[in-house]
Amino acid sequence: MIAISLPRLTARINALARFGGLPGGGVTRSCWSPPHEEARAWLIGEMRAAGLTTWVDPAGNTFGSLGARALSPETPAVLTGSHIDTVPEGGVLDGALGVLAGLECLHVIHETRTRHAKPLAVAAWSDEEGRYGSLFGSRAFTGKLDMAQVPTLQAVDGIKLVDAMAGAGYDASRVAEARCDPRTLHAYVELHIEQGPHLEAARLPIGLVEGIVGIRRNRLTFIGEPDHAGTTPMAWRKDAFLAACEYALKAREHIVRKGSGRSVTNFGRIELSPGVSNIVPAQAVLLQEMRELDPKILARLDRECAALARTITRRRGIKVVVEAMSRTDPARCAPRVMNAVQAACEKLKLRYKRMPSGAGHDAQNLALVTDSGMLFIPSRGGRSHRPDEMSDWKAIERGTNALLHTLLTLAG
Amino acid sequence: MIAISLPRLTARINALARFGGLPGGGVTRSCWSPPHEEARAWLIGEMRAAGLTTWVDPAGNTFGSLGARALSPETPAVLTGSHIDTVPEGGVLDGALGVLAGLECLHVIHETRTRHAKPLAVAAWSDEEGRYGSLFGSRAFTGKLDMAQVPTLQAVDGIKLVDAMAGAGYDASRVAEARCDPRTLHAYVELHIEQGPHLEAARLPIGLVEGIVGIRRNRLTFIGEPDHAGTTPMAWRKDAFLAACEYALKAREHIVRKGSGRSVTNFGRIELSPGVSNIVPAQAVLLQEMRELDPKILARLDRECAALARTITRRRGIKVVVEAMSRTDPARCAPRVMNAVQAACEKLKLRYKRMPSGAGHDAQNLALVTDSGMLFIPSRGGRSHRPDEMSDWKAIERGTNALLHTLLTLAG
Repeated sequence: MIAISLPRLTARINALARFGGLPGGGVTRSCWSPPHEEARAWLIGEMRAAGLTTWVDPAGNTFGSLGARALSPETPAVLTGSHIDTVPEGGVLDGALGVLAGLECLHVIHETRTRHAKPLAVAAWSDEEGRYGSLFGSRAFTGKLDMAQVPTLQAVDGIKLVDAMAGAGYDASRVAEARCDPRTLHAYVELHIEQGPHLEAARLPIGLVEGIVGIRRNRLTFIGEPDHAGTTPMAWRKDAFLAACEYALKAREHIVRKGSGRSVTNFGRIELSPGVSNIVPAQAVLLQEMRELDPKILARLDRECAALARTITRRRGIKVVVEAMSRTDPARCAPRVMNAVQAACEKLKLRYKRMPSGAGHDAQNLALVTDSGMLFIPSRGGRSHRPDEMSDWKAIERGTNALLHTLLTLAG
Repeated sequence: MIAISLPRLTARINALARFGGLPGGGVTRSCWSPPHEEARAWLIGEMRAAGLTTWVDPAGNTFGSLGARALSPETPAVLTGSHIDTVPEGGVLDGALGVLAGLECLHVIHETRTRHAKPLAVAAWSDEEGRYGSLFGSRAFTGKLDMAQVPTLQAVDGIKLVDAMAGAGYDASRVAEARCDPRTLHAYVELHIEQGPHLEAARLPIGLVEGIVGIRRNRLTFIGEPDHAGTTPMAWRKDAFLAACEYALKAREHIVRKGSGRSVTNFGRIELSPGVSNIVPAQAVLLQEMRELDPKILARLDRECAALARTITRRRGIKVVVEAMSRTDPARCAPRVMNAVQAACEKLKLRYKRMPSGAGHDAQNLALVTDSGMLFIPSRGGRSHRPDEMSDWKAIERGTNALLHTLLTLAG
């Protein structure tokens, strides 16, 4: 039975890890940065050496194709891939695994001359981690990017997208041209590390992804009064921070108890004003994120949390303003792709479990234009987006072989 | 009966309010800043015009004396005063009232040639509001300032004390010379706005201050884990922010229920790390302030809150570090000064109530070197440290007359 080469894949993972590699381990490789662009050049070289035809679209998505010189509606392709950018101080597998495992699959198919009716291609999507808004490249490719925003997009370091792209040799005014013709695509499947602890805890090698959760990010502004923290009686205070505390604890409980059982929430940031020790906080700006696979449950939790915030603040005699910052809809994986992953696991005698993806992935954008799906391998300790993110090499090998057979099934 | 001139006092309050005055009302007059130094020059001119002898000590404390050319152990003086610096966007009475009311008292005593056995002096203490640590000038005067710190003190705007003082014509290396000889002082009494709502609520013109609360400021660092906010099950998270929320709510309840009934606490600042929407907060640094007049109760609440933080974090499987940032001890007002205030109120038929000061004042430092006390007048709406801080002019007149008769009693 056809199988991937773990030594070759390992060598490529280690080679890619050196672009933006950090002294203590891990990697910082933001999209359009010099390490990222050097990594892209290296990747294109590896693709060509593996016998693939390569191209880069105007959004910076990098492709390597087997059996076609470009995507064409006459011969819809089976696509795999992920991304080669990382978060600051991220790990060596997030994104990189999906791209290099895809490349390895195409490489072994090519060198073994294994038959595939449809063209196969591997993509490295631009800026998945969101230096300029998450899933940038796959949004451009699937027509989901708001082109009017492109000239104004700016990273947290103040560098504008147009300048970052120009520095890497790209013209931001041409990003719209990256939009694909959906007729050129037959299916998309992405291999990724789980970035969570479920597979390791269950001692299972493969996660068969049912869908990617939707995410709602809200900004809650609690508005109280900036009283003197020494002279104002406790009962008279209108403390915006304590209202935010009560809300955070209760909203968390509500989502745990009244969600799907897999619904999650996080409060990653809070800013108090005036922010000094001796003045009662007059304002607390709290960011809340909610994730859930079922769109109805997600919408309900969102409504119920907003109502909870109003109840708490009304009782405390203060005000709250709830603003939606961003919303991504849940994306169900296509049954045809899930069936192909399942068949691959059965062929390879790999146990798997069905699970949602709690993190966003390019596959959710590809789902807008073709049948899309994902498979996960276990993350050690569930760790991700940190330098010690890792998976066992055996797990990487199993996952890549599962991807290989999934691709062959889909490519007929 | 001798009485102050409200029109003259009103004119001076309005004149001082123009130094650093803000277009929409209120004033920003940080110590050593140009508006503050212009205000000081104006104040010295007013003192001289009122017949006082003036001097400024090396810490920038400004004095005007009646009946002595300087403080002398042969003729211990009765001192009054407050400060002319303000918080950013503060009001026109905090500090200014005590200095200008003191000046008015000495002015009227001088022009009426009213007999006083002891010298009388009014002081404007430097940097009460703490651009470089609160109560700076009175700490220098009473020997409580850590001189080793002076070269390194830096304001939040990054300007060093040595440079701010040099810009105003002072030599920071000479600050230690401001230390007084306690034998030169007979008593200190300070008139101030209440900065709280108690007097207004009780419809009483005078607060007879029993003491100034002690303040403990602690930094609590809650240490959890920076997990992925999408992929980590809710039950597995070690969320530093939610632990801080639970602590803040419970510590507040504890202090309200188990304190003196007048004990207060505030959480004015919290910083989360890494501080992004999609990562569980791994660290939350929370500032807590506690105030209480009884030193035993204050120490007990401090201990109990630290124990509460440990209990909460142990149960949540995270860590906490509690660090003392600053501690000021409660200061009891001297019975002799309180008796003089009480006698003045009775003479003027002004009702009063005994109360602690929830805010810190220079009087607490003066208590280290002489018999010290305070009297309060009502603050409109309890407001302070904001542009709309105000008191009724009638209340200002009553309070200043009470100060006048207190000073005459103390000066024998």
